[in-house]
Amino acid sequence: MLRWLTAGESHGQQLTAVLEGLPAGVEVQTSDIDAALARRRLGHGRGARMSFEQDEVTLTGGVRHGRTQGGPIAVQIGNTEWPKWQTVMSADPVDAEVLEGQARNAPLTRPRPGHADLAGMQKYGFDDARPVLERASARETAARVALGAIAAAFLRQTVGAEVVSHVVGIGPVVVPDGVLPGPQDNPLIDEDPVRCADPATSERMVAEIDDVRKNGDTLGGVIEVVVHGLPPGLGSHVHWDRRLDSRLAGALMGVQSVKAVEVGDGLETSRRRGSVAHDEIELVDPVGGQHRVQRLTDRAGGIEGGMTNGAVLRVRAAMKPISTVPRALATIDTATGEPAVAINQRSDACAVPRGSVVMEAMVALVLADAVLEKFGGDSVAETRRNARAYLDALPYR
Amino acid sequence: MLRWLTAGESHGQQLTAVLEGLPAGVEVQTSDIDAALARRRLGHGRGARMSFEQDEVTLTGGVRHGRTQGGPIAVQIGNTEWPKWQTVMSADPVDAEVLEGQARNAPLTRPRPGHADLAGMQKYGFDDARPVLERASARETAARVALGAIAAAFLRQTVGAEVVSHVVGIGPVVVPDGVLPGPQDNPLIDEDPVRCADPATSERMVAEIDDVRKNGDTLGGVIEVVVHGLPPGLGSHVHWDRRLDSRLAGALMGVQSVKAVEVGDGLETSRRRGSVAHDEIELVDPVGGQHRVQRLTDRAGGIEGGMTNGAVLRVRAAMKPISTVPRALATIDTATGEPAVAINQRSDACAVPRGSVVMEAMVALVLADAVLEKFGGDSVAETRRNARAYLDALPYR
Amino acid sequence: MLRWLTAGESHGQQLTAVLEGLPAGVEVQTSDIDAALARRRLGHGRGARMSFEQDEVTLTGGVRHGRTQGGPIAVQIGNTEWPKWQTVMSADPVDAEVLEGQARNAPLTRPRPGHADLAGMQKYGFDDARPVLERASARETAARVALGAIAAAFLRQTVGAEVVSHVVGIGPVVVPDGVLPGPQDNPLIDEDPVRCADPATSERMVAEIDDVRKNGDTLGGVIEVVVHGLPPGLGSHVHWDRRLDSRLAGALMGVQSVKAVEVGDGLETSRRRGSVAHDEIELVDPVGGQHRVQRLTDRAGGIEGGMTNGAVLRVRAAMKPISTVPRALATIDTATGEPAVAINQRSDACAVPRGSVVMEAMVALVLADAVLEKFGGDSVAETRRNARAYLDALPYR
Amino acid sequence: MLRWLTAGESHGQQLTAVLEGLPAGVEVQTSDIDAALARRRLGHGRGARMSFEQDEVTLTGGVRHGRTQGGPIAVQIGNTEWPKWQTVMSADPVDAEVLEGQARNAPLTRPRPGHADLAGMQKYGFDDARPVLERASARETAARVALGAIAAAFLRQTVGAEVVSHVVGIGPVVVPDGVLPGPQDNPLIDEDPVRCADPATSERMVAEIDDVRKNGDTLGGVIEVVVHGLPPGLGSHVHWDRRLDSRLAGALMGVQSVKAVEVGDGLETSRRRGSVAHDEIELVDPVGGQHRVQRLTDRAGGIEGGMTNGAVLRVRAAMKPISTVPRALATIDTATGEPAVAINQRSDACAVPRGSVVMEAMVALVLADAVLEKFGGDSVAETRRNARAYLDALPYR
Repeated sequence: MLRWLTAGESHGQQLTAVLEGLPAGVEVQTSDIDAALARRRLGHGRGARMSFEQDEVTLTGGVRHGRTQGGPIAVQIGNTEWPKWQTVMSADPVDAEVLEGQARNAPLTRPRPGHADLAGMQKYGFDDARPVLERASARETAARVALGAIAAAFLRQTVGAEVVSHVVGIGPVVVPDGVLPGPQDNPLIDEDPVRCADPATSERMVAEIDDVRKNGDTLGGVIEVVVHGLPPGLGSHVHWDRRLDSRLAGALMGVQSVKAVEVGDGLETSRRRGSVAHDEIELVDPVGGQHRVQRLTDRAGGIEGGMTNGAVLRVRAAMKPISTVPRALATIDTATGEPAVAINQRSDACAVPRGSVVMEAMVALVLADAVLEKFGGDSVAETRRNARAYLDALPYR
Repeated sequence: MLRWLTAGESHGQQLTAVLEGLPAGVEVQTSDIDAALARRRLGHGRGARMSFEQDEVTLTGGVRHGRTQGGPIAVQIGNTEWPKWQTVMSADPVDAEVLEGQARNAPLTRPRPGHADLAGMQKYGFDDARPVLERASARETAARVALGAIAAAFLRQTVGAEVVSHVVGIGPVVVPDGVLPGPQDNPLIDEDPVRCADPATSERMVAEIDDVRKNGDTLGGVIEVVVHGLPPGLGSHVHWDRRLDSRLAGALMGVQSVKAVEVGDGLETSRRRGSVAHDEIELVDPVGGQHRVQRLTDRAGGIEGGMTNGAVLRVRAAMKPISTVPRALATIDTATGEPAVAINQRSDACAVPRGSVVMEAMVALVLADAVLEKFGGDSVAETRRNARAYLDALPYR
Repeated sequence: MLRWLTAGESHGQQLTAVLEGLPAGVEVQTSDIDAALARRRLGHGRGARMSFEQDEVTLTGGVRHGRTQGGPIAVQIGNTEWPKWQTVMSADPVDAEVLEGQARNAPLTRPRPGHADLAGMQKYGFDDARPVLERASARETAARVALGAIAAAFLRQTVGAEVVSHVVGIGPVVVPDGVLPGPQDNPLIDEDPVRCADPATSERMVAEIDDVRKNGDTLGGVIEVVVHGLPPGLGSHVHWDRRLDSRLAGALMGVQSVKAVEVGDGLETSRRRGSVAHDEIELVDPVGGQHRVQRLTDRAGGIEGGMTNGAVLRVRAAMKPISTVPRALATIDTATGEPAVAINQRSDACAVPRGSVVMEAMVALVLADAVLEKFGGDSVAETRRNARAYLDALPYR
Repeated sequence: MLRWLTAGESHGQQLTAVLEGLPAGVEVQTSDIDAALARRRLGHGRGARMSFEQDEVTLTGGVRHGRTQGGPIAVQIGNTEWPKWQTVMSADPVDAEVLEGQARNAPLTRPRPGHADLAGMQKYGFDDARPVLERASARETAARVALGAIAAAFLRQTVGAEVVSHVVGIGPVVVPDGVLPGPQDNPLIDEDPVRCADPATSERMVAEIDDVRKNGDTLGGVIEVVVHGLPPGLGSHVHWDRRLDSRLAGALMGVQSVKAVEVGDGLETSRRRGSVAHDEIELVDPVGGQHRVQRLTDRAGGIEGGMTNGAVLRVRAAMKPISTVPRALATIDTATGEPAVAINQRSDACAVPRGSVVMEAMVALVLADAVLEKFGGDSVAETRRNARAYLDALPYR
């Protein structure tokens, strides 16, 4: 069982992430996490903040000399803006005089539609939206990306799986059918301004983002995560919460702004007739005396009966447009009980490209857990040995 | 924390469901579960099995004289077909002679595309798909519906929420925008042959089902679950797995055949611009000295920042068409290593109408857990008291 | 991850137990569970109820033809006394006339010290202790014993471990140091009237029980569970709740009447000096080229740093005397607000001998979970293969 | 549900602790955690390390201006010795030249009996005990103490409970019966050199420690945690893992060195007869129209049927003597395959006094979880309101 928690506020001193349950011997170092976080900062449509935001990563537990040690792994991501916020966001009480007059400390009392603000104030009994938005902010996803990089290393080093992601829609602009990045395509996609794997569509996406920005608006979109090299039999049909699709859906919908999740062809599958909705099975040439099977299609996205079936895994997450729109939305002022327009926090025009890096992380974390569940193991060598013995023993693969 | 497990096979002696963690004092009896299961048997497009399948419900634990007692609740649902299966599915070993020649006992070696069959055989080391399909079968959802009926009673009796569901798409036929059933509409919808809330669309759905059946094919579709009367603040933004949308997505994707899940306007939201994608907030006349707010729209489906926001909750699940298509699909015979056509288990043409009753159950179970998490309580009276005190103390509601 | 729930009341229709997460291929059948339950009914000092109580076991899910199928396993244990209780304990409402005058239906308003009665009434808001004592009763442990028998089969068939238990104290009578049953001693111990492995002590224990019974009193005692054949490395030092000793302690303390839990020499160890409190390590002759180590003593009970160390596992649970003493204790009558003497439910003089069978079950369930966590696997063959590969790869064992 | 994880190694850069699920509005600041950690450093019998070890606490998430914000709380505890260890314990790879010749970096190949060393090396596949002992070290308990201080603040501010601890045994020296510290006695006990509440016994304990130290040996002992002011009904009888005694036992046995756990009179209770083993109930003068009950004794330690019963909670943990004894124990050298004496890490003569502060923390964390489970609430005000309404509604209390 893999467990993880993140902590920290958007303008706090640092984000903290702890990952518990990963075997020993995973090769990972600070630069791997730096690289993952750098990918999260990419993307056309990001706002001013992303350009000056730095991620100061420190691995403070669980890794020694580039290898995990079996214990919980701790990562901290410093906030380079902290000096500006250290009294406003101080953990300890601060003299009233120090806070007085700091605009950053003024209560936020005009909750933004589309955000956690109002419901969070009600739930936790706040008269200021600050504590809500500080934690609800997508800044927190940096901590997930850090852990996801470690999970992805584990997947690669044990079962040889590779997690890739690409943007398949920005607002109304969508990639044509059949665009499917391969195991090593992430670097290429990272170079695209919107992390789209189809150059022609990418251009149209960029134009769309430029247009909304000009019009003081924002855009959402759809991300696909693709995983190559997974063994069959991760997840299970035996109980709903062991199903891999259930766990992936929960993980993706657990990312800020996601409003829909699809497995394989998803919604499209629900419109097809049964005779053309499934993936027929055929034999291919045996390898080393072992029967080999393959699918004629991959409509199911590599999951049948809640389990990986050995085909390419494909899941999609649809993000709503950023809720903080420059054209402010109607709300109330909770301090006065009067109508108001929503507070306007600095924001991006489109967060979808970097959202794709977050989705990768969530998928990697779910799959690492599923690999451990099936194969056990307390070291990379042990998990890998168990996985190989399983694959070798399959009569059909 | 609410926990539940189901057990039992499609052609086994009975299904068993246990629900642990529900407070005492929930009024529920066998007839409530009977009624929920009867709703699950309804629907145009069901096959022969549904018409003779009976659900023999017995509440064997946790309820006394029509009220829950605080301990785990056990439900068993007998299988009226058991006499035909009692040797083939016997828990204990059976003489080879008894089994010999029974067609039902023959190993199933032509795994069906779209089902758990092949991946399940690989994962669990079976050379027969029987153990996989017996558990993966949608028959198991009867156990969930039974527990869902109890969870729905808890929601009604504590926070006054009502769970409704309706079919919004069958294959390519979809309901027009704006169809939204009210709190008491389930009985009316139950009378519709496809559980559609829009009579004109319902007719077209029935025609579509008749057409696929004539053509030896099957259909999927989309279900919407609508919940009225929820307080704001269920779920949370503070950690991904506390988000209510994450938990709902995991629960719905955990139902057999579901390939996509949407919250509110879902995918559609990802195509809109931010200025028209969120739900503006306005003040309405105060009630009893308490400010009241409402939303001008409900695009978010009643969830912002992973929490209920007091608006109507709406989630959708898209089911693929039934995988057992009368026109058999290509597969392999694992016994011979030769190409084959898939085994053809008796099935329905369209399972979407009764699927909607299952989705209701999953939503009710998730919400009951979220209500307990927020309000605590070991009796209906205590949970209700805590919920009311919370609502009364809100400055804005 | 192994999960399990039990349901049902002491005088209800049946107990229900569901075990989720066990691999396929475990050989188990009804007679194995019958045998385990028969052992639970043994023991000098049991009251009238145990002698006429029968356990009607049915395996209703998860097992076919004597082998587990990978899905949840359901066991029901019928109550042969049900006809006498079926209106009083009916799940559904019963006509007032039917209940009137039935002594069994009268509210129990004199909560018994030492039982869950009063705290349970307060917690759940009852004015009758019936719902509390029906669930708190040790009758429920029959369900655990049923599941424990399945877990023990899994342990035997995968890692070759054997779980044994014996009574090491009844009231003030304790076995001498050094009594340690071997892997196959359970049958012999079962024949002893108090499940004691030392015949001389057994006689004194029987005499002690006879004495308390004569004096209208009750006795507690101490049970030791001994497990042979466990591999090193189950559990972990990396986080408190992964420690095997923590999990065993929680499981044993989770049995009715247990007030203390010890690992190895337990309390005695806390009184020793460090130089004579640990188990020194020595080399023994290598086997098949693999270094072999052994311990000079087993003070630690086979657990160091929260992990099995390859030595014999030993844990102890101390049970308080049965709280329902024939000489009634002072309490209150919650119906009248007056002092009263406690209700006196039929009970045994000493439940320790059969308690030992319950402790075995709890230990087997914890260990089965720990084996799955370390070795993974979805079939007995896979878990066994992984465990053997691990042992074979150890440089020292 | 309250969740928490700790990370970090004994000689690593820092310990990290994250606590997720605590309501907003708990008043807590750095100085509270400093104070708790200072108490952990007290105690006669500590070694050199404790005297120069400093705990540099930073609250890096979840708290603002002295109040929790509803999100996860992160604490880091810096290691003032880090400069000496920064290459040896570096997360990232270090040049071989830099490490060469550093004694601290030499593999530890003589695993210590009584420690996690050997089993940990086997489990995780290490040829060096360093990664095991770095995480298994009791240094990690500082992280638990930090979180325990926050949990204790929550208990005090919501239900008014106070957690106290005292040492009741050091080796063979034990306090007389009947010593029971009151709600405010922790400061006094903190001043005692062995955290013993009985001055005469304290002197004998100090003498015993001085004696073992002189003889190059170590001592264990027994700690009692006492909680005043808990409402009845925390925990539950309905399922084994909801029992408060089970959860407390798991938590205490989850602390390094603990080999036995007792609730109330524990083992002693198992030797008594039933007529004198329980706590009779009597009425006392009503308060504000509400019946009041009390116990004539507290043998049960405030827990009946797995629930608090409103009496004082008492639990005990027995710690073995420190395993690193100056008089080295026999072991093997895993590098050579020869007999050896165990590595000797710097250690204390007796860790029991400061162990008591760790036990307090574990008890506070379990109780905070149980309070949330019963009363729910997302703010201190809400949890407190719910708890009070419950108590006010009890007919007997």
